[in-house]
Amino acid sequence: MRNFDQFSITQAVLERVANAPDDRIRQISEALIRHLHDFIREVRPTQAEWEAGIGFLTDTGHMCTGTRQEFILLSDTLGVSMLVDAINHDHQTAVTESTVLGPFYVEGPPEAPCGTDISGDLAGEPMFASGTVATADGTPLANAIVDVWHSDEDGYYDVQHEGADLVARARFRTDENGRFHFWSIRPAAYPIPHDGPVGKMLEAQGRHPWRPAHVHFMIEAPGHEKLVTHVFVSGDPYLDSDAVFGVKDSLIRDFTAHPAGAAPDGRVMDRPWCQLTYDFRLNPISAATSRAA
Amino acid sequence: MRNFDQFSITQAVLERVANAPDDRIRQISEALIRHLHDFIREVRPTQAEWEAGIGFLTDTGHMCTGTRQEFILLSDTLGVSMLVDAINHDHQTAVTESTVLGPFYVEGPPEAPCGTDISGDLAGEPMFASGTVATADGTPLANAIVDVWHSDEDGYYDVQHEGADLVARARFRTDENGRFHFWSIRPAAYPIPHDGPVGKMLEAQGRHPWRPAHVHFMIEAPGHEKLVTHVFVSGDPYLDSDAVFGVKDSLIRDFTAHPAGAAPDGRVMDRPWCQLTYDFRLNPISAATSRAA
Ligand SMILES: [Fe+2]
Ligand SMILES: [Fe+2]
Repeated sequence: MRNFDQFSITQAVLERVANAPDDRIRQISEALIRHLHDFIREVRPTQAEWEAGIGFLTDTGHMCTGTRQEFILLSDTLGVSMLVDAINHDHQTAVTESTVLGPFYVEGPPEAPCGTDISGDLAGEPMFASGTVATADGTPLANAIVDVWHSDEDGYYDVQHEGADLVARARFRTDENGRFHFWSIRPAAYPIPHDGPVGKMLEAQGRHPWRPAHVHFMIEAPGHEKLVTHVFVSGDPYLDSDAVFGVKDSLIRDFTAHPAGAAPDGRVMDRPWCQLTYDFRLNPISAATSRAA
Repeated sequence: MRNFDQFSITQAVLERVANAPDDRIRQISEALIRHLHDFIREVRPTQAEWEAGIGFLTDTGHMCTGTRQEFILLSDTLGVSMLVDAINHDHQTAVTESTVLGPFYVEGPPEAPCGTDISGDLAGEPMFASGTVATADGTPLANAIVDVWHSDEDGYYDVQHEGADLVARARFRTDENGRFHFWSIRPAAYPIPHDGPVGKMLEAQGRHPWRPAHVHFMIEAPGHEKLVTHVFVSGDPYLDSDAVFGVKDSLIRDFTAHPAGAAPDGRVMDRPWCQLTYDFRLNPISAATSRAA
């Protein structure tokens, strides 16, 4: 176990992990070593390039805080997040498609009754959002947890403002017919945070950091896979160049424009508003389990 | 550019970086995307495993400080550092072999005249180290910079002790005959720092964190490639299982035991001491440049 050259070292490292007590850890370690070494042998980094790589990873780690997850941004922009999503959601049944979680979800968002306006004092075009949650065959799911979060009209999330309250973010529950509804404001397209290492990477790769406007949904119901998805605004100029590759046609909806006047929940609007409607279908866990086996 | 599956997404991400202004960045980005996606498709991580991966990288970044470089430890323990070294030092000429830099080098170490005892008040067996620096054909190199650093008898480096002075670390210069010499103490085998994410990884992989005892050398002279290497202590029990795969037979030396008495520089020792001798040969840059071309 000495005197390795650029080929024999790979076998040496593989042998070192061959006795990992957990089979899955051994499998992942072996695959990581093989693919990582293949990458290095292909690009033949200079010592300075290796140092730059170490520096990039270190800077990316240092950029991560309680409200900023630079490694998720890196995974998103390299297409890894959507690849993992595709591997885990290759559904045969007619359930709602999933997309990236993104870096702005907050665990345990504030609960709110259906109908609440979650826009706080944000400016923007009012948005009435409603929909249903059902299982794959269309049976409504009562008491499902519906987490929503989205950007303001300038494209920022609440957590991007230092010390700001949580806003444009809440947890609802579906009623006995699987229905939910709430008020907020229309989300805007936004650049992913690009003042850190990932922003530098995108610039060096000749890419823009923009994502098309969307509302995030995370939906949970007993006996069903958790659904992590967005609803995108139709017509957005970035639908075909999402910086994180998250767009699927089935997730695009018109955010229908309405003049001032009565909204579906009886609220009378003194200015124009828009309407988002989406009917979600969740994947039963039994099907998921048998697929994985 | 929508609706990607687990195969089409790779092409989509490759197309996104195709216009990187710098050819080398495009080349590295494309290789990274291909190998990373192949890795993901092979291991098929669950969403929870992906989150664990993001968490591991984040923890590794947070462990990095001015005196702790956890990503270098990760590169070292996955064999990447020695692979990069092998790619860049595939010498045809008879020059000294290189090995990992490791995480404990300090930029701009304290300069000291030859003969200095750099062990400060450390306990341990005295070590007299001497040698020469020459070019590939054996011509001595005067005024070469010789940086040395090594562990104490407990296996710790100075920078691992909070607030401690720099010790067992210095910069010497060769004399007109390419010679240098200094006093210190015999280094000990040591575990790489394993109280962080890399230590957890090694444990999960069923590996020990130990490195065989060694003295680090980094040698620079005009017109020559910088040499980053170690001299290992013969007989060390970890020579065949170095946690970072850095051992080469040509870098192992007897640290010869001597009884109390006169040392080569005239110092009279009142207790036993050991002697390390190594003659380094550097690679001329012209040869390196033409190899790279
Ligand atoms: Fe978002
Ligand atoms: Fe060391």
